[in-house]
Amino acid sequence: MSGTGHSDLGDILLMPAVGELKLNPGRAENPDEGYRSRFNHATEKAAPGYYEVILDDYGIKAQLTATQRVGVHKYTFPKDKNGHLVLDLAHGIYNYDGKVLWANLRVENDTLLTGYRITNGWARTNYTYFAISLSQPIKDYGYKDKAKVLYNGFWRRFKLEKNFPEITGRKIVAYFNFDTEQQPELVVKVALSAVSTEGAIKNLRAEAEGQSFEQLAEAARKSWNDELDHYEIEGTQDQKAMFYTSLYHTMINPSVYMDVDGSYRGLDHNIHQAKDFTNYTIFSLWDTYRAQHPFLNLIKPDRNADMVESMIKHQQQSVHGMLPVWSHMGNENWCMSGYHAVSVLSDAITKGVFTNTDEALAAMVSTSTVPYYEGVADYMKLGYIPLDKSGTAASSTLEYAYDDWTIYQTALKAGNKEVAENYRKRALNYRNIYDTTIGFARPRYSDGTFKKDFDVLQTYGEGFIEGNSWNFSFHVPHDVFGMMDLMGGEKKFVEKLDELFSMHLPEKYYADNEDITLDCLVGGYVHGNEPSHHVPYLYAWTSQPWKTQFWIRDILNRMYRNDINGLGGNDDCGQMSAWYLFTVMGFYPVCPGTDQYVLGAPYLPYLKLKLPNGKTLEIKAPEVSDKKRYVHSLKINGVAYDKMYVTHEDILKGGVWEFKMSSSPNKRRGLAAEDKPYSLTNGVN
Amino acid sequence: MSGTGHSDLGDILLMPAVGELKLNPGRAENPDEGYRSRFNHATEKAAPGYYEVILDDYGIKAQLTATQRVGVHKYTFPKDKNGHLVLDLAHGIYNYDGKVLWANLRVENDTLLTGYRITNGWARTNYTYFAISLSQPIKDYGYKDKAKVLYNGFWRRFKLEKNFPEITGRKIVAYFNFDTEQQPELVVKVALSAVSTEGAIKNLRAEAEGQSFEQLAEAARKSWNDELDHYEIEGTQDQKAMFYTSLYHTMINPSVYMDVDGSYRGLDHNIHQAKDFTNYTIFSLWDTYRAQHPFLNLIKPDRNADMVESMIKHQQQSVHGMLPVWSHMGNENWCMSGYHAVSVLSDAITKGVFTNTDEALAAMVSTSTVPYYEGVADYMKLGYIPLDKSGTAASSTLEYAYDDWTIYQTALKAGNKEVAENYRKRALNYRNIYDTTIGFARPRYSDGTFKKDFDVLQTYGEGFIEGNSWNFSFHVPHDVFGMMDLMGGEKKFVEKLDELFSMHLPEKYYADNEDITLDCLVGGYVHGNEPSHHVPYLYAWTSQPWKTQFWIRDILNRMYRNDINGLGGNDDCGQMSAWYLFTVMGFYPVCPGTDQYVLGAPYLPYLKLKLPNGKTLEIKAPEVSDKKRYVHSLKINGVAYDKMYVTHEDILKGGVWEFKMSSSPNKRRGLAAEDKPYSLTNGVN
Repeated sequence: MSGTGHSDLGDILLMPAVGELKLNPGRAENPDEGYRSRFNHATEKAAPGYYEVILDDYGIKAQLTATQRVGVHKYTFPKDKNGHLVLDLAHGIYNYDGKVLWANLRVENDTLLTGYRITNGWARTNYTYFAISLSQPIKDYGYKDKAKVLYNGFWRRFKLEKNFPEITGRKIVAYFNFDTEQQPELVVKVALSAVSTEGAIKNLRAEAEGQSFEQLAEAARKSWNDELDHYEIEGTQDQKAMFYTSLYHTMINPSVYMDVDGSYRGLDHNIHQAKDFTNYTIFSLWDTYRAQHPFLNLIKPDRNADMVESMIKHQQQSVHGMLPVWSHMGNENWCMSGYHAVSVLSDAITKGVFTNTDEALAAMVSTSTVPYYEGVADYMKLGYIPLDKSGTAASSTLEYAYDDWTIYQTALKAGNKEVAENYRKRALNYRNIYDTTIGFARPRYSDGTFKKDFDVLQTYGEGFIEGNSWNFSFHVPHDVFGMMDLMGGEKKFVEKLDELFSMHLPEKYYADNEDITLDCLVGGYVHGNEPSHHVPYLYAWTSQPWKTQFWIRDILNRMYRNDINGLGGNDDCGQMSAWYLFTVMGFYPVCPGTDQYVLGAPYLPYLKLKLPNGKTLEIKAPEVSDKKRYVHSLKINGVAYDKMYVTHEDILKGGVWEFKMSSSPNKRRGLAAEDKPYSLTNGVN
Repeated sequence: MSGTGHSDLGDILLMPAVGELKLNPGRAENPDEGYRSRFNHATEKAAPGYYEVILDDYGIKAQLTATQRVGVHKYTFPKDKNGHLVLDLAHGIYNYDGKVLWANLRVENDTLLTGYRITNGWARTNYTYFAISLSQPIKDYGYKDKAKVLYNGFWRRFKLEKNFPEITGRKIVAYFNFDTEQQPELVVKVALSAVSTEGAIKNLRAEAEGQSFEQLAEAARKSWNDELDHYEIEGTQDQKAMFYTSLYHTMINPSVYMDVDGSYRGLDHNIHQAKDFTNYTIFSLWDTYRAQHPFLNLIKPDRNADMVESMIKHQQQSVHGMLPVWSHMGNENWCMSGYHAVSVLSDAITKGVFTNTDEALAAMVSTSTVPYYEGVADYMKLGYIPLDKSGTAASSTLEYAYDDWTIYQTALKAGNKEVAENYRKRALNYRNIYDTTIGFARPRYSDGTFKKDFDVLQTYGEGFIEGNSWNFSFHVPHDVFGMMDLMGGEKKFVEKLDELFSMHLPEKYYADNEDITLDCLVGGYVHGNEPSHHVPYLYAWTSQPWKTQFWIRDILNRMYRNDINGLGGNDDCGQMSAWYLFTVMGFYPVCPGTDQYVLGAPYLPYLKLKLPNGKTLEIKAPEVSDKKRYVHSLKINGVAYDKMYVTHEDILKGGVWEFKMSSSPNKRRGLAAEDKPYSLTNGVN
């Protein structure tokens, strides 16, 4: 799980050691009490698909690589000692006492282990099966169950704790001893499956059998290199590092969740066979509908089509009939608000990436009408979620309205007028929680009255989720003119945007807030969390579109640093990074579901994108710099281009975009009505 | 599980109720505190495939029937009240706090529930999936989790306890309310699967969909009638009741453990597809190798062939490479001693029921050479299990020696001389623990010395399992003459048998012994437990074979009473009943693996057995009575027959056996050497 606010997994902990056998991890403040080891960052080497470090307490060199379904470890032990390998099945990330419901381990033979564990963690019920192959035979082995064994039947007749090949319990820590004097190198291949140990063995055989660590590491390097090869760029070393790191981040999650033979565990916990698609999991949709999925539509459309198909299968397997909110290893984690999978489906359909519009529409309608899901019953009745029914009444109303607009779009494409009209109306529901007297979104109660004592800068307790009203009020990406109108017209709208980016946010508004820190703030604009990601682009609908060009470079420079803690917030499964990549290219999908990307300004002097259709798009801005951050003019394939957006088709045509940059804004570009991006209404109520 | 000493299951408890909703069972001494109800045995009706009772506390009539994989309930509620159905997923048989590892329940729609639970009970890891269809729609529903919810992630955003269709936890008790004023009848069909909820739905559809309770009850009645129709008999009502009850008992376990589509959960917890066989579970082999499996070879050979195939698959899925000892829902429960599955395989091969001798032999050899299984390493080295290594050293040595004889027989049939010779020697290992100075089996230590202070009447602590030396010393069914020799010759052997059946066993030897009670004793002979079941037939090898005829009628009369608690011991998955059926017919498989049945005497005046080859065997003894219990002479299809055994082939020929009975023994029959049943040696050391 890459850059998520919550976490899970860590199901199979392996630790090599020498000397006295320790079956507890020990504490960080006293590593000697457990199997953990000190290490020095200076001994680390890391690259996509590779990591190495020296475990100082044991003098063991640890090298790691991976295939799609197999983690590969190489441990080089000191020559003069006997080595252990600890397999801690009681360990976990986000662990708590009782998270592991049951663990099983079989020593199939002296170089093969299989097993599984079932956990109740962030994923409510998670099945992790594994097969572990060892490059040298186990000398002897055993385990300890740290949980009280509640019932063991006739198993007690065996000496279970030593060299008994069938190990089961709640808190199992196993160990395997090796003759590392004879053979100091131990290669461990850990294949995963969500289906069965049989599936894990198949995955192991298909991806890693018969290959050395070095061969697999080279294959991983090549595989990542192919993925990162979508782009050629010019820039500083830091810029290149940030760019390719961001690209890498967009390709970790969502993740493949399927065995090599196409079987996978569905949301109903049954085993399904994927027909003509690859099943994916880890959909952090409140984050990723914004830029991560649109980014994949652009550079990996086949992969995103598989993700859409995976979401539809999830919906069909859901007892709620819902598309994923936060899907995780065959579970729905229900994290965050909205039903934004509909946006992903809609965007994929709009961009020709997914074609089964009827199937998608059925899933979208079902998803958006589940009465017990966060305020939906009231939303459908009243046109907004009342604050007395939900603590996130205002933000969820805004999110539903946008989501409903994507269903409206899909219904139009499906030719279903009745559904289209219903969702067109729902798409305007954002209006119902705007308080035009203050020009902000403001939660209302069931009786229609607005919340009293309302603080537009306060994130918590005001009816919004992980964002204050000032930021969240801009969340009407599908009807910017309509929103502008509710805020008091274009002039006030621009003033509000200007104030957002330049205000001084008093410390009390972020002091105790894990989602907002000082280094993710630009004025009162919070880049470290998602609700505002499209906001810098909203100037495009105004008479001062050049202000986008100013602020996005500021954000790129300040929020994406090539350093530890270099991101101004969680990466959130690629969303922060996809924002970066779009913004560096000079455009951003403000309203997924349209075919439009709103133009900002290129960040780098040269960028070449290899498009999935085989064409290339070169984006040239040779003079660009922090100073020359404004777009004076743009030529697309030699033709002057003054609109404030480009379409998906424009990009797919490839060719050359030549930006002429300037140290002062060109205040005459993009002002005509036809230059403006899409808006559902013209804003006249 | 039918008549086992241990228990498990009870995974899905349904209870109909009216009035105040109660989600605890309450205690038997105060039924009103929980959902349980008083009932009167007078309201019960029971027949194979059918049960009914009135639940007095609620005025509900409960009727039950079943298909192979679906339990079918019909509840008739009183008309004037609202009805509940409680589904208690925290309940279980042999329950303890923590047995349920995890339970899941989905309300798929208002007439269909699916779910599963995973338990750590007598079966170490048991997966029970279910699909429950309801004949009328749920009005509303909810649940309570009686366990502390350790972690619930974002699920806490829902009101989970009421009308939320996805229920998960450790101790779930759900309830469903129905409008029983409108519709007082509720039919509930509970389909099981060990594979998945999808499998349970398939089973439900294949076996029970679209059929009324009455139709299904009639189908169950007919199905059982077909099974019980193997015999026609004459006798008293009690004798008939006991006979058909016994026949019913032989057909409950082993049980089918496979979905209608052939998928089943293997011992490796993976899902397998049965190719050309039906997978079975619940093999209580220490009990059932004796008469239950031989009985199935005679009347249901195809079913026993499937059981043998199921055992071989178990062996192939076992990380120990072992055939089942006590297999249970894809688990090995390791209950009792020996590796008697080899006897079942051997017997099925000898009788032509199972033909893949090579596959069977490989499984048998693998099973009998697992060094960490109860003393096997020492047994292979020393020829006996030392008492200092195992508390059941003497009985297990006896059991292994017999089991090894069956492997010897199979190796002979497979033409594998080397294996045959190895196991022929192992089959003689029983000799190594006979103390010829006392004429009894007696445990030895590693240094070769016998246990001091040895009590041949004491069941516990003397090196035997669930049987004392006096009974267990006769456990050499494959080499009766050899055993006789070690006991001091034929005269002493007969004296010892006589004494066994006629002795007074002091109360201290059974007072605190759950496996021996006064009503299962004939002298010192214990019929209520298995080790002695063949002993009454051992007179056949002596000069006084008629004594068998005396004692077996005594046992039939005293140990099989048509009453509550009518059996003189647990039925043990059909073994007690199969002993009864064989003995009533007049013969018994003393040494499974031979093709011989040792002759006793018929119990009833007339019995007709419909053989699986379409022939019939009539066994006539018109004069038989408690008084005329001795066989004066026998004619098989008109020809006088004086041997003390018949072969499997003799039986399969069918025809008529005419017994002439007498009130005094015919002391001249069956005395010639060629009249005697099989013995590995002639007893001369």
